[in-house]
Amino acid sequence: MLKPGDCIGILGGGQLGRMQAIAAARLGLKTHIYCPEPDSPAFEVSAFHTVAPYEDEAALRAFASNVDVITLEFENVPVSSVRLLETLRPVRPGAKALEVAQDRLAEKTLANQLGAGTAPFAAINNRADLDAALATIGLPGVLKTNRFGYDGKGQAKIFTADDVAPAFAMLNGQQGILEGFIRFEREVSVIATRALDGGFTAFDVTENEHRNHILYRSVAPATLSAEASAEAIAIARKIGDALDYVGTFAVEFFVVQEGAHTRVIVNEIAPRVHNSGHWTIDGAVSCQFEQHIRAVAGWPLGSSERRCNVEMINLVGDEAADWLALVSDPMTKLHLYGKAEARRGRKMGHITRLLA
Amino acid sequence: MLKPGDCIGILGGGQLGRMQAIAAARLGLKTHIYCPEPDSPAFEVSAFHTVAPYEDEAALRAFASNVDVITLEFENVPVSSVRLLETLRPVRPGAKALEVAQDRLAEKTLANQLGAGTAPFAAINNRADLDAALATIGLPGVLKTNRFGYDGKGQAKIFTADDVAPAFAMLNGQQGILEGFIRFEREVSVIATRALDGGFTAFDVTENEHRNHILYRSVAPATLSAEASAEAIAIARKIGDALDYVGTFAVEFFVVQEGAHTRVIVNEIAPRVHNSGHWTIDGAVSCQFEQHIRAVAGWPLGSSERRCNVEMINLVGDEAADWLALVSDPMTKLHLYGKAEARRGRKMGHITRLLA
Repeated sequence: MLKPGDCIGILGGGQLGRMQAIAAARLGLKTHIYCPEPDSPAFEVSAFHTVAPYEDEAALRAFASNVDVITLEFENVPVSSVRLLETLRPVRPGAKALEVAQDRLAEKTLANQLGAGTAPFAAINNRADLDAALATIGLPGVLKTNRFGYDGKGQAKIFTADDVAPAFAMLNGQQGILEGFIRFEREVSVIATRALDGGFTAFDVTENEHRNHILYRSVAPATLSAEASAEAIAIARKIGDALDYVGTFAVEFFVVQEGAHTRVIVNEIAPRVHNSGHWTIDGAVSCQFEQHIRAVAGWPLGSSERRCNVEMINLVGDEAADWLALVSDPMTKLHLYGKAEARRGRKMGHITRLLA
Repeated sequence: MLKPGDCIGILGGGQLGRMQAIAAARLGLKTHIYCPEPDSPAFEVSAFHTVAPYEDEAALRAFASNVDVITLEFENVPVSSVRLLETLRPVRPGAKALEVAQDRLAEKTLANQLGAGTAPFAAINNRADLDAALATIGLPGVLKTNRFGYDGKGQAKIFTADDVAPAFAMLNGQQGILEGFIRFEREVSVIATRALDGGFTAFDVTENEHRNHILYRSVAPATLSAEASAEAIAIARKIGDALDYVGTFAVEFFVVQEGAHTRVIVNEIAPRVHNSGHWTIDGAVSCQFEQHIRAVAGWPLGSSERRCNVEMINLVGDEAADWLALVSDPMTKLHLYGKAEARRGRKMGHITRLLA
């Protein structure tokens, strides 16, 4: 268990690391950011930082020797680096959670093993696999690289036979996964935290709207029956337990209507704090970042109780240029990530609106 | 008006600077802490820092050249240094507010000029002044150094004639002020923010309990009639306007019962964010630190609305050693300031309890 003044190492220096560092500072814990990019957003709010590639063994060893525990802000850290770090310091969440979350096939297989539904899927190692899978799953479908895809990257939709060859070419030799299309009513997510002793908290289920494959808006609570909400949270808890997870994580779901019955089926697991949980900073007793830091520190979790109805909207690319109009509404909470350049598709900040 | 990415210079690196820096980071503003002490709590959450005495003209000039606007976390910065900085960058609040707040006589005189009551008081420049003032004001009274007193330092109570000589000796040649004792029901404070354009917000009046001259506990809302609350806030507004103040400030009041009538009389003005406003971090839509940063940046203010009943308790000296018990209550919000050494009387952190 960490004590105040101890240092948490964070792999990754983007906004998720930045908001973790702020939460840690509030609790009297120091942070050390490890990140390849100089001038990363998290550096400004952390006591220490290391600029080095994630594969730099000497830098990783030096980093580990300067911190008491290690966590991460994104799932695409090389598992081999995490395995090295695990020999030196506790890493929370550890390599096991990353391996599953980096691998769509493993992720969906785990969900099914835990009794949760997913879209139909098949592993694609070659063109013959793809043809066979399309014959079984049917059209339309979406072919994805099995690893390292996010925000719609590494995905190709297959509506007709003409789409098959270009989709397969996109894989470019990587392992793929074909997923059947799901006709869903809405997308929701559960942001949950699992403590070192297995303690578990979840925020109210959040409803998410995407634009151009990037999260646009999250609303809490989601429009969802109490039964389906409880089911989603129960699935998240099973996943956390199965991965022996420590920290905050997200499970994204599709909400599917089957006659009178509403089901939630697992879309994706994110082994980290999650964009759809940003509303918790202003809208919950303890936010997802504080819960994560508490878990990583080995501390008991705070209350995840929602304090009001709340809406979060991402500011992507030049949308953050409207900051003055946004900050002029007294009930709008503006969060900017300190990024100098507003590139297209880049998450620059978000706003939270406190509703009734 | 500052824009995101601009830098706010903060004189002082304690917990008040630290919480200002966190609020600035949330809004996408950088901070540069100027502080004589190395390893100050605010350094960990700010992009830049300067370690130099407040009287170091070269360091002050270099600091000013690296920031867009300057503010402060405590009122005992030398006015001459602030005057120098004012020639280089906007300083908010400026020297005028500091001069009044550093001078108990000026502070009380201003309050009276604005129609607000204070304890009876008299300037003490020599022993004859003190004897004359005691004859007029009567016993008991409290003799204070006119400048640079805080948390009960530089104060001596006078109950009997025997107390007069030692009290006068305490002044040690400094100008003093004799204040008559006030028989008060309770102590309350108004934490208010005045924007660059004169916009004004105030949090709900807070009730304060001191132990050993140090704030022990604040509760919002205070037990106070709507009329007396409105009067306190109106007085704070007049003070802010009179000082052409920009930023968050506190006015401490005594609540006095005069027959059926409840009055508030001004005790002290603090030209900065204030310990009795720490509950606003967890208990208000925009906290005192965010409101301060918005004002200093020339931005519009957010909502100061209180979100729930709330209690704040300071962790002084070794009280912070109980952090694990405190953090184990899910509804308690723990705030620690990153101070290594728990010296007697040192403010190490605070907790906020969210009530009904």
